[in-house]
Amino acid sequence: MKSTRQLKVDVYFTPAHLDEMQLKDKNIVVVDVLRASTTIATALCNGAKEIIPVSTVESVVKISGSLFGDVTLRAGERNAKMIEGFNLGNSPLEYTEEVVRGKSIIFMTTNGSAAMVKGRHAKNLVVAGFVNLSAVVEFLAELHNDFIIVCAGKESNFCLEDSVCAGKIISKLDTVIDDNLILNDAAVATVTLEKTIGKGVLKMLRNSEHGKLLSEMGFEGDLKVCAEIDSLSVLPVMTGNVLRLHKGSKQPSQTDAK
Amino acid sequence: MKSTRQLKVDVYFTPAHLDEMQLKDKNIVVVDVLRASTTIATALCNGAKEIIPVSTVESVVKISGSLFGDVTLRAGERNAKMIEGFNLGNSPLEYTEEVVRGKSIIFMTTNGSAAMVKGRHAKNLVVAGFVNLSAVVEFLAELHNDFIIVCAGKESNFCLEDSVCAGKIISKLDTVIDDNLILNDAAVATVTLEKTIGKGVLKMLRNSEHGKLLSEMGFEGDLKVCAEIDSLSVLPVMTGNVLRLHKGSKQPSQTDAK
Repeated sequence: MKSTRQLKVDVYFTPAHLDEMQLKDKNIVVVDVLRASTTIATALCNGAKEIIPVSTVESVVKISGSLFGDVTLRAGERNAKMIEGFNLGNSPLEYTEEVVRGKSIIFMTTNGSAAMVKGRHAKNLVVAGFVNLSAVVEFLAELHNDFIIVCAGKESNFCLEDSVCAGKIISKLDTVIDDNLILNDAAVATVTLEKTIGKGVLKMLRNSEHGKLLSEMGFEGDLKVCAEIDSLSVLPVMTGNVLRLHKGSKQPSQTDAK
Repeated sequence: MKSTRQLKVDVYFTPAHLDEMQLKDKNIVVVDVLRASTTIATALCNGAKEIIPVSTVESVVKISGSLFGDVTLRAGERNAKMIEGFNLGNSPLEYTEEVVRGKSIIFMTTNGSAAMVKGRHAKNLVVAGFVNLSAVVEFLAELHNDFIIVCAGKESNFCLEDSVCAGKIISKLDTVIDDNLILNDAAVATVTLEKTIGKGVLKMLRNSEHGKLLSEMGFEGDLKVCAEIDSLSVLPVMTGNVLRLHKGSKQPSQTDAK
């Protein structure tokens, strides 16, 4: 039986109309399944020191100028394409241990990193995808407080994959805590979408607008990586504009027997 | 069996990030279930000459100054409340034949009329709610062309009732035309929502954020009016910034036996 305590859960389908002040001192979950969330989780899991999300190329240039060249990577994309002069694109498959271990990664993507930058004055900000679903839910269960899920969306529009992922986070949290979750309209919609088209995540990704685009561009392999629920038990958290692993996160390459 | 012809259907959950040029020369359906769509359909059904949607109080003042006072009404709301100096609010129950017959109504609401103003350079723009669902679907079936559904949403955010209504329009159209409908992610979501929480429209309205707010403000009766599928066989269409009845629309008060 549920208790009478209430947790307020608001979902926004895009960060476009949100400003920093609306997210200040809030608990924020940023979801960008294709592909920023998945890529960031992979990079940190494979030993990257930190990820610095930025929203403009100008910021990339400015920040990389103040860091040592050999421990810094410039990474990201504009409209799914790698940016000239960058070291890495936005495919999680590029972020191997060999490439990222010990590195600071300045990270700029079309949708996801902008959402993270807007949340830089949040009380807590974590990054979520299907790959680290349980780690996110565990964090929210411990947090035991109101929170906001900001879907990165696609160029200021709704996208299916982030919404279904948000719905899975809410549905799973609902099974592990006693409190009643008070959902805004968008949160209600995500839970409904998750129950129907969220059963087969890879199929849903392949049918989504963004998934189709990535497949056409040769990134079909990325969809499989992004669809793997709980393949990574890591939680990227933001502290002072920088994403690092949450203390409870496991780095399989360090802790697992090889 | 479906033909191989394709109709493209895009849904936007809010007009916030759309600009006039994106809607120029397109076929647009504006959905604002609570309450602008319902109120506009009711007013035209009850004999209003025309509705002039505007997006600012300044426009209301400017336009009403250029029209004859005795045939013009200033109508609308800000955050569900009537505006000082206006003749009417945004409750469909106010728009009786006695009040509106023969009148030009300058109409400004928080979400809906802004969406209509953004669509003023559209090729076709029609206004849709649950109350005139079949009239809208009939128009789209005859139009037989790509179209865009712009949900008014609520203060730049997603709202359930407009999305479910959009889903009902798409689902119903799909049953009456042969063409394959090619849906963007948001359109896929509306069809999914319609199939699940769209079964009981009044219940869905009562559980929606906007519906709850209206009930608290004493407008519970409006929810019932807005939930009545096909209660009005009228189609408001925009021509030169003004909404009038589509030629095929019926005005029950004129044509039905009393």
